[in-house]
Amino acid sequence: MTKVDKIYPPDRVSLREVGLRDGLQMVKTFPSTEGKKTWIEMEYAAGVRHFEVGSFLPDTRYPMFADVRQVISVVKNLPEAHGAALTLNKRGIFDALDSLVGEIECVISATEEHNQANTRRSQLETLSDIEDLCRMRDASDYKPLVSVGVAMSFGCSIAGSVEPVDVLRVADACYEKGADIVSLADTVGYAGPKQVSMLAAELRKISGNKPFGVHLHDTRGLAMANAAAALNEGVRILDGALGGLGGCPFAPNATGNIVFEDLVFLCQTYGIATGIDLNELVKIRELLSTEMPTEPLYGAVANAGLPSMGRLE
Amino acid sequence: MTKVDKIYPPDRVSLREVGLRDGLQMVKTFPSTEGKKTWIEMEYAAGVRHFEVGSFLPDTRYPMFADVRQVISVVKNLPEAHGAALTLNKRGIFDALDSLVGEIECVISATEEHNQANTRRSQLETLSDIEDLCRMRDASDYKPLVSVGVAMSFGCSIAGSVEPVDVLRVADACYEKGADIVSLADTVGYAGPKQVSMLAAELRKISGNKPFGVHLHDTRGLAMANAAAALNEGVRILDGALGGLGGCPFAPNATGNIVFEDLVFLCQTYGIATGIDLNELVKIRELLSTEMPTEPLYGAVANAGLPSMGRLE
Repeated sequence: MTKVDKIYPPDRVSLREVGLRDGLQMVKTFPSTEGKKTWIEMEYAAGVRHFEVGSFLPDTRYPMFADVRQVISVVKNLPEAHGAALTLNKRGIFDALDSLVGEIECVISATEEHNQANTRRSQLETLSDIEDLCRMRDASDYKPLVSVGVAMSFGCSIAGSVEPVDVLRVADACYEKGADIVSLADTVGYAGPKQVSMLAAELRKISGNKPFGVHLHDTRGLAMANAAAALNEGVRILDGALGGLGGCPFAPNATGNIVFEDLVFLCQTYGIATGIDLNELVKIRELLSTEMPTEPLYGAVANAGLPSMGRLE
Repeated sequence: MTKVDKIYPPDRVSLREVGLRDGLQMVKTFPSTEGKKTWIEMEYAAGVRHFEVGSFLPDTRYPMFADVRQVISVVKNLPEAHGAALTLNKRGIFDALDSLVGEIECVISATEEHNQANTRRSQLETLSDIEDLCRMRDASDYKPLVSVGVAMSFGCSIAGSVEPVDVLRVADACYEKGADIVSLADTVGYAGPKQVSMLAAELRKISGNKPFGVHLHDTRGLAMANAAAALNEGVRILDGALGGLGGCPFAPNATGNIVFEDLVFLCQTYGIATGIDLNELVKIRELLSTEMPTEPLYGAVANAGLPSMGRLE
């Protein structure tokens, strides 16, 4: 079994908590390192095994990620837990390799326009960086996973509609350069379930046996419908954030990441084992409220409770 | 073409605004008759054609529906608009027939336990009432549509899990007694998309060419995923409430009806024509805020706006 299949088993759905990274990207207040540690340890106790823990970015502009190395260590100390961290440039890649984080994430945009706006680089330059990262990974002792998120896969706030063929071309190139995982990101919440089904089905064809995921935002209310479409197509890695933490820079007051606990409930209604205890997971929202009292938390299961027949794993 | 097919055309999806009935069932404040009139007329201008306008219930306990006859008249005065009103007992049925409302709705529960708790009658007694109503409809001059909502179709807060075969037996009996439309209601938000797909596919088999619908609540966050599943299975009548108006008596603070405007957006991502102008629809939320300042409004499209490429009809 390949390393990536050990970490993201092909026969199950892996739900990733991305609240500690994508959820904190825009917050005004953020948890202390101790708070992040408790957050991770409580979710781990509830059965979560996959955590996106931060970004390698300048501390001065992104103080919420200044402790990323410590947070990586928290995850490393938990058996079978897997941590991932985002890099947006060469410096970040070196830092990430140095941190021994389990998975190094990069981003490329499905459109040239957004890739330029987001990174001041062309898609080809970004692909070249991904290739370099994969080479460094191969040359390293610990060989982290490399995953690539394809931003704006379902529509772009700059370029408008995005052709599926362009997304697939980018995804294919990422695998080609050596990425272990490709994730299609609905960065601005433009996706609909029909589109998710179609792209996921096409991506499966070109991915060989490599895993792929979806990263969904609930900006326009369709995240859960899109997640269901992804599950229907056999997508095995889905991101979410507890309490739907995380906003959208393009839409003030808009909801952010798909609500992690509601996503767990969705999986339960499918009879998909996630290994996560939903009752325990929901309780961890209190920690977020304490650590970030001004951040709104979203989600329905937390308010409504579980069905009376307790559709629990 | 049958009357029901004229009102709910088989080749399109009909979205019903149920905020004026299901949305007002539990509110503390409710719009004036004039406010309801403006609400309906504005939604009509935005392209909405199907309205659930109220219940025939004692004014003293349900003051929000005291003006149901006037609201029915508002809808009647709009060309091609279609109004429906709910009846929960014989008295209501007589009043509804007398009001000349276009569609008379009844409710039966998928479980005997909930039917007893909700109406103090057995399922068989309720079926007998539906049969009587259909006879009265046949004997009437104006022959309203008769629709039946099957409460707790996806799980029951009293009886727990509900067997699909029991739902289908009830639905079949309703058609048999003469109902024009059967709607499967996720009364307490227990449904998941897999279950919706399966039940909708089975219901289609037994419905002949008669239309059927789904009535979804977002109590546990899966309403939109369930709506997508219903659309995938060719369900052609879906209910929603502007701003997700309406709570759930079983879950304080829980969200209520599926958000109408987000549902319209879902249809747009499918390329399904609904005839509704989403930009205009969203503006009507302001009226609700003015008329019911203490009621929370839900929904994502209203906050985030439409995608930049304006996926509008």
